[in-house]
Amino acid sequence: MHRFGVWAPRAQKMSVKFGDGKFAMEGPNARGWWKLELKDCDCGDRYAFLLDDDETPYPDPRSLRQPEGVHGLSELYDHSVFAWHDQLWRGAPKTGAVLYELHIGTFSKEGTFDGAIQHLDYLRDLGITHVELMPVAAWAGNQGWGYDGVSIFATHEAYGGPDGLKRFVDACHARGLSVILDVVYNHFGPVGNYTNKFGPYLTDHHKTPWGNAVNLDEAGSDEVRRFFVDNALMWLRDYHIDGLRLDAVHAFIDLSAVHFLEQVSSEVERLGATLGREFYLIAESDLNDPRIVRPREAQGYGMDSQWSDDFHHALFTLLYDKEPGRAYYSDFGSVGDLHKALKHAFVYDGQYSQYRRRKHGRPAEGLAAHHFIHFDQNHDQVGNRALGERLEHLVGIDAARVAIGIVLLAPYVPMLFMGEEFAASTPFLYFADHEDEEMRKAVSEGRKREFSAFGFWDEVPNPEDVKTFEDSKLDWSEVEDGKHAEMLSWVKALIKLRRSTVSLNDGSMQRLRVSTDDVRRTLV
Amino acid sequence: MHRFGVWAPRAQKMSVKFGDGKFAMEGPNARGWWKLELKDCDCGDRYAFLLDDDETPYPDPRSLRQPEGVHGLSELYDHSVFAWHDQLWRGAPKTGAVLYELHIGTFSKEGTFDGAIQHLDYLRDLGITHVELMPVAAWAGNQGWGYDGVSIFATHEAYGGPDGLKRFVDACHARGLSVILDVVYNHFGPVGNYTNKFGPYLTDHHKTPWGNAVNLDEAGSDEVRRFFVDNALMWLRDYHIDGLRLDAVHAFIDLSAVHFLEQVSSEVERLGATLGREFYLIAESDLNDPRIVRPREAQGYGMDSQWSDDFHHALFTLLYDKEPGRAYYSDFGSVGDLHKALKHAFVYDGQYSQYRRRKHGRPAEGLAAHHFIHFDQNHDQVGNRALGERLEHLVGIDAARVAIGIVLLAPYVPMLFMGEEFAASTPFLYFADHEDEEMRKAVSEGRKREFSAFGFWDEVPNPEDVKTFEDSKLDWSEVEDGKHAEMLSWVKALIKLRRSTVSLNDGSMQRLRVSTDDVRRTLV
Repeated sequence: MHRFGVWAPRAQKMSVKFGDGKFAMEGPNARGWWKLELKDCDCGDRYAFLLDDDETPYPDPRSLRQPEGVHGLSELYDHSVFAWHDQLWRGAPKTGAVLYELHIGTFSKEGTFDGAIQHLDYLRDLGITHVELMPVAAWAGNQGWGYDGVSIFATHEAYGGPDGLKRFVDACHARGLSVILDVVYNHFGPVGNYTNKFGPYLTDHHKTPWGNAVNLDEAGSDEVRRFFVDNALMWLRDYHIDGLRLDAVHAFIDLSAVHFLEQVSSEVERLGATLGREFYLIAESDLNDPRIVRPREAQGYGMDSQWSDDFHHALFTLLYDKEPGRAYYSDFGSVGDLHKALKHAFVYDGQYSQYRRRKHGRPAEGLAAHHFIHFDQNHDQVGNRALGERLEHLVGIDAARVAIGIVLLAPYVPMLFMGEEFAASTPFLYFADHEDEEMRKAVSEGRKREFSAFGFWDEVPNPEDVKTFEDSKLDWSEVEDGKHAEMLSWVKALIKLRRSTVSLNDGSMQRLRVSTDDVRRTLV
Repeated sequence: MHRFGVWAPRAQKMSVKFGDGKFAMEGPNARGWWKLELKDCDCGDRYAFLLDDDETPYPDPRSLRQPEGVHGLSELYDHSVFAWHDQLWRGAPKTGAVLYELHIGTFSKEGTFDGAIQHLDYLRDLGITHVELMPVAAWAGNQGWGYDGVSIFATHEAYGGPDGLKRFVDACHARGLSVILDVVYNHFGPVGNYTNKFGPYLTDHHKTPWGNAVNLDEAGSDEVRRFFVDNALMWLRDYHIDGLRLDAVHAFIDLSAVHFLEQVSSEVERLGATLGREFYLIAESDLNDPRIVRPREAQGYGMDSQWSDDFHHALFTLLYDKEPGRAYYSDFGSVGDLHKALKHAFVYDGQYSQYRRRKHGRPAEGLAAHHFIHFDQNHDQVGNRALGERLEHLVGIDAARVAIGIVLLAPYVPMLFMGEEFAASTPFLYFADHEDEEMRKAVSEGRKREFSAFGFWDEVPNPEDVKTFEDSKLDWSEVEDGKHAEMLSWVKALIKLRRSTVSLNDGSMQRLRVSTDDVRRTLV
């Protein structure tokens, strides 16, 4: 027996396609939901929805599993079946966190959750507390960074599907590692998004870099918000995930009195209080607005932390001044910028930004440093280079050691990008697998065009070529050799120092003393 | 001598057209401004700007006077010339305010500022403290409500131009009356808006009911915000206006860390502190978001008050349940709604709105009642009826007396709509004068179409017909007769009671006791 349910407020009739049958649903109710209880179907059975007189079977927008990919039938999946071993797990404390961003497809040779499990002892020994997974929600095709997810309640099958993710989380918890998952609620991927058949998930009143914005405050938005908030709660509750990293929250257009992020943080807190677990909410924000991480009681949105791009840009532009084509670096470059990032979190806290051609940000005064995540590189900065060069490839090992030292010894929450701890020689390239032939062509040529202005035309690896993906996999054989081993022991020592020194964990920007000299370009 | 200046960041060259000459400007500077100092020109001289190789002379976006209308030449105007008599004026206190909304074109027979001055003794004797003018910024054509302004630094010539407005303000102050001006910063009128020739005042990333949204947070937005904030400051500083009513603030799309409204309130406060005057900022907000009126120190936007549409709708639907075609009334209708509006300001403070098809609002707990403006009708509610019927025309004199009683005896800030105090028999219709023939036709037919569904097809007065405007003028000969005189003395008595009773002015929602019975439809 299974109770089917789907939100389709505009449909005149809805059916479940199941086996050879087609079963009319009841509805819609006042909220726009259709329901049907079907006997003789269970876990593992496949189904789809039929809308009005359209005979095309569409996957369930809330499908928990897409075994044949995002275009295919949905599969009934029961979250209660998996045998967990983490009953005592409560989550690692946020304030002492050392994060490690990793991409399942390229972290291990296998490119799967099970492949990644083999390296968890290594992460624990390195001193990591939180593993941050790039998105794993199902997208069209095989390889990809994950930001083109379309069936966001299903786990990518190429990684090992739902049970694979659960095995990974369980294995992390067994080693004392928390798991943070990157989730994308500001758009759907360009291929395989069928949600618009079902309801007003998007609005054409607002445009984002990905096209129509997600409908967060217009007619029907309660259910759209429920869709995303329920998704957040699912990962935390049913997959035992310990926190979420919300992609590009500056692309949320929400004028309603309760902002979407506030709703997320309050419902997540409620779940944590119920389950007795500590959840960690992280925003990628380009707004330099302290409201994102201010507590809800103080009229903020209640995110725990946000990525500190200002710190990254200030640090990177000091170490490397030859980066072509990333206009946002033009706003940075002085030792004073790094000084300010370390003392005040936001470099841009109200002054004019040449890149944005407007004033940007406001001061973050009064907030603890724990609200900001520091890194000297991440998947975006590395992967958005034509050749996917890591920081060390550009600046050399000595400067890379200094960079990670500044990240690990400041009172902000540090984050490593997989492989940087052993100065991995492999690149992290932009790769995708857009199935759709038109889209593949557009993406490949767009990538070439993007970099052609900087003389890279011939060399830019084709994102849609599987070799580009394979080339981005870490080479674990490097870890024990020469400069790689030296870098690893340096990083391990720094993390150990951090995790055993009270003053490196107090989260006070006030007590941090930074002394810089812009002429001599020094920082103490 | 005059220093010309204009913001035109995309122009390759700019000239001032002056007399028979064409004078090249210098620029643009880093902010996108062009400048030119010309001798031999002074107050009263006319000019225009020429952009690039376009030989069309465009009026100055910041023109202080458009003597030949919004399409014509701009005129140099010197704010320091007018002889003021209000040196001791500091502004009437906000918390004891009794507002009176009026439309210059229809308030007096003459339809001018000078015509209105003749009725100011009457308003003083009525007990009014603040006169709220519907917009007076220059728009295309003669008659109109004023919400189609395009040359927003110039005062509508048909009303009497800049000096006319100054005479009016001076005359108000001489009688102890403050003046609030309705300003429209969320769009430009559809005819005569040349700002887009000069710079990115609008963005196509967001749509509002009027089309492209004002650019408040994208490239170039600093100067767009300056344009509007400088406009606000001009009225307060150069015209001695005492406050502003910001039209439809829910149409501002601004994701920047310092919201446009916060910038307005902080710069207005600064000006008030400098001049030693008390300014009153009022927002028309459809957001039911207490952030609008919360102090900036408590992370709000710092508006003093906002219009309380919920109260109006709750009251009106109890008194009249036959209103066709205004879907927002469907969300109201019980005595409980009125009870809630009186006790908690927002009726919708988080629950589902059938009209909006989403949840709406959040509680206004902890805010003083002075943050909310109550009325039983306003220009919008009256004028948006097919026949411009006032409340009394629909519900009769007894119910109208009760309605204004509830408005005037609750601890919120009361506002009357011109003529309601004497139960004026004249309507307040929707009228316009869109010059452009296409637009006239579109507006007239749109209006007919809007009401045709409710059986009004033939009767709807044509908005573009000057008779529609003339018919909306108050008939002052009524004031002393019969029910008109009775209503007037009733309203006068209520205002006198309010202004002499401490408990009616304490702004406390907590101490207000409301007792209602939804079955018997009573309220005490």
